[in-house]
Amino acid sequence: MTDIILITGGTGFAGSHLVEALLAKNQAPETIHVTSFSNKPGFVGQLLPATNIHQLDLTQTEAVIKVFTKLQPTQIFHLASFSSPSLSLENTAKAIETNVEIQMNVLEAMRVHTPQARLLSIGSASEYASSPEPLSETSILGPHDPYGVSKVAQDMLAYSYAVRFELDIVRVRPFNHIGERQEKGFVVSDFAHQIIQIERKLQQEIQVGNLQVTRDFSDVKDIVQAYLLLMAEGKSGEVYNVGSSKDVTIQELLARMKALSTVDFAIKVVEQKQRPGDIPRSVAEISKISKLGWQPTIPLEKTLERILNWWRQQ
Amino acid sequence: MTDIILITGGTGFAGSHLVEALLAKNQAPETIHVTSFSNKPGFVGQLLPATNIHQLDLTQTEAVIKVFTKLQPTQIFHLASFSSPSLSLENTAKAIETNVEIQMNVLEAMRVHTPQARLLSIGSASEYASSPEPLSETSILGPHDPYGVSKVAQDMLAYSYAVRFELDIVRVRPFNHIGERQEKGFVVSDFAHQIIQIERKLQQEIQVGNLQVTRDFSDVKDIVQAYLLLMAEGKSGEVYNVGSSKDVTIQELLARMKALSTVDFAIKVVEQKQRPGDIPRSVAEISKISKLGWQPTIPLEKTLERILNWWRQQ
Repeated sequence: MTDIILITGGTGFAGSHLVEALLAKNQAPETIHVTSFSNKPGFVGQLLPATNIHQLDLTQTEAVIKVFTKLQPTQIFHLASFSSPSLSLENTAKAIETNVEIQMNVLEAMRVHTPQARLLSIGSASEYASSPEPLSETSILGPHDPYGVSKVAQDMLAYSYAVRFELDIVRVRPFNHIGERQEKGFVVSDFAHQIIQIERKLQQEIQVGNLQVTRDFSDVKDIVQAYLLLMAEGKSGEVYNVGSSKDVTIQELLARMKALSTVDFAIKVVEQKQRPGDIPRSVAEISKISKLGWQPTIPLEKTLERILNWWRQQ
Repeated sequence: MTDIILITGGTGFAGSHLVEALLAKNQAPETIHVTSFSNKPGFVGQLLPATNIHQLDLTQTEAVIKVFTKLQPTQIFHLASFSSPSLSLENTAKAIETNVEIQMNVLEAMRVHTPQARLLSIGSASEYASSPEPLSETSILGPHDPYGVSKVAQDMLAYSYAVRFELDIVRVRPFNHIGERQEKGFVVSDFAHQIIQIERKLQQEIQVGNLQVTRDFSDVKDIVQAYLLLMAEGKSGEVYNVGSSKDVTIQELLARMKALSTVDFAIKVVEQKQRPGDIPRSVAEISKISKLGWQPTIPLEKTLERILNWWRQQ
């Protein structure tokens, strides 16, 4: 039987790379459906038939049910969420309530209308409490920002539906992922956009936040391969970290991007790019997914180069 | 300086025992304020001045701010929540959204209007994933019911406010607690009520759910002593289990209650009292709070006797 694949938030950053990866594996375009909050399909509009792109506000219960009953998906990559940690700082209640509502609607629609489907629930490294040690799946949860709180709530809802209703749900906690088509609110895209502005002589110095913290960056193309593997082989109810297992300071990251650019520039630390309560270190322990056969494959340098080139084309 | 104490949900089950315990420690009644969703102060109406009982829907942001600014509490025992695991099964979205809204409103009001206060945030043993081992504060979170999901969300919000805004917040995860004035939806009160109905010849057999699971029961009077200790000596940001560290099957519990009653009766297992996805065992590991000097002091038998006597007087 051919799988009918539903990707919530499928026109977004990770979603668009996931669609590409599925097509590269010869999944037929007409069997891939995506939902999109806006009516702008963007890059995915070039990959899928227009009829497979469903404008949908996932906080609207009846509308979600309609899509599930109509499409009868067998695989659900549930990527949609209020996804910006920085915006969540200013919209605490909205971030949490939106993500709880989205999760409730998707899980209920699955439970009632497509209980035989398999769902991949996307959590976040932000769920973990700050620790100088690598974070494993058994590390203490303790999010610092509202986004992280909302992802814990989504993750726990997914777990409770898996155990109470014996639904086939696999959970994942991805660490930072980067690539072309990511929005400017995320650090690498933000830096890349500013660097290209400098190359174009539209800006003179780069404005940055805290350069001392470390983060674990993976290429989004590696991340979506992990999603495909977990959909195929992840154990129901279980949670898996996905990350590079190497961390880098934001300072070092910026230095590498500067080396890949055609210009020199000054770096200015500005108040409004600081995040209160930012955690000093985040690095993944990935032995659990490694045992299933996943490893990051793309060197950071290559990813940064691709991102800069993409911004040059915008 | 005299503390101004605010107890959210202070007319409820644990709240009423906490008020009693504070008065027994010579806290002046006029310095103890409680909020109540309903306008029925119940038992607490006999203990505190009427002006100290504030009718308040904690999901109403402006109303919460008004109470915080007016009272300027220095200690906040935040007990209020959608608190019934069994009702949460039928009202999943409501349970979670209510508890998230309550928590947001209380934490925001504290952050903006009484940032010097100390707050005790009440989580739950339901936050933990099912395990045959005793549950410590570092055990994996994985709630089975919506109530548990909502308590994880509250707990993580409290943690994030403690670390991001350096607020003085202590968290607690109480295991099952029992005593007089608990509602019928909870197992011991439910059994006690039915047994007294049988003693009064208004009922013939007792209807029960799953008798094989074990739970860790403490006297609510011991639990509120733990809350007082944590308010005085808990470490900010940290979480503490509170329980007896002994579990008992529901079967054994019922047998003990039967032995304390004046009648014999048949036991009937009924479908509608079963809970889907109920966890088989729940027992607390309490070394963390033990180090602060807390231990349960009241034997289960004494508590059960008191509960039966209370129901006989209703």
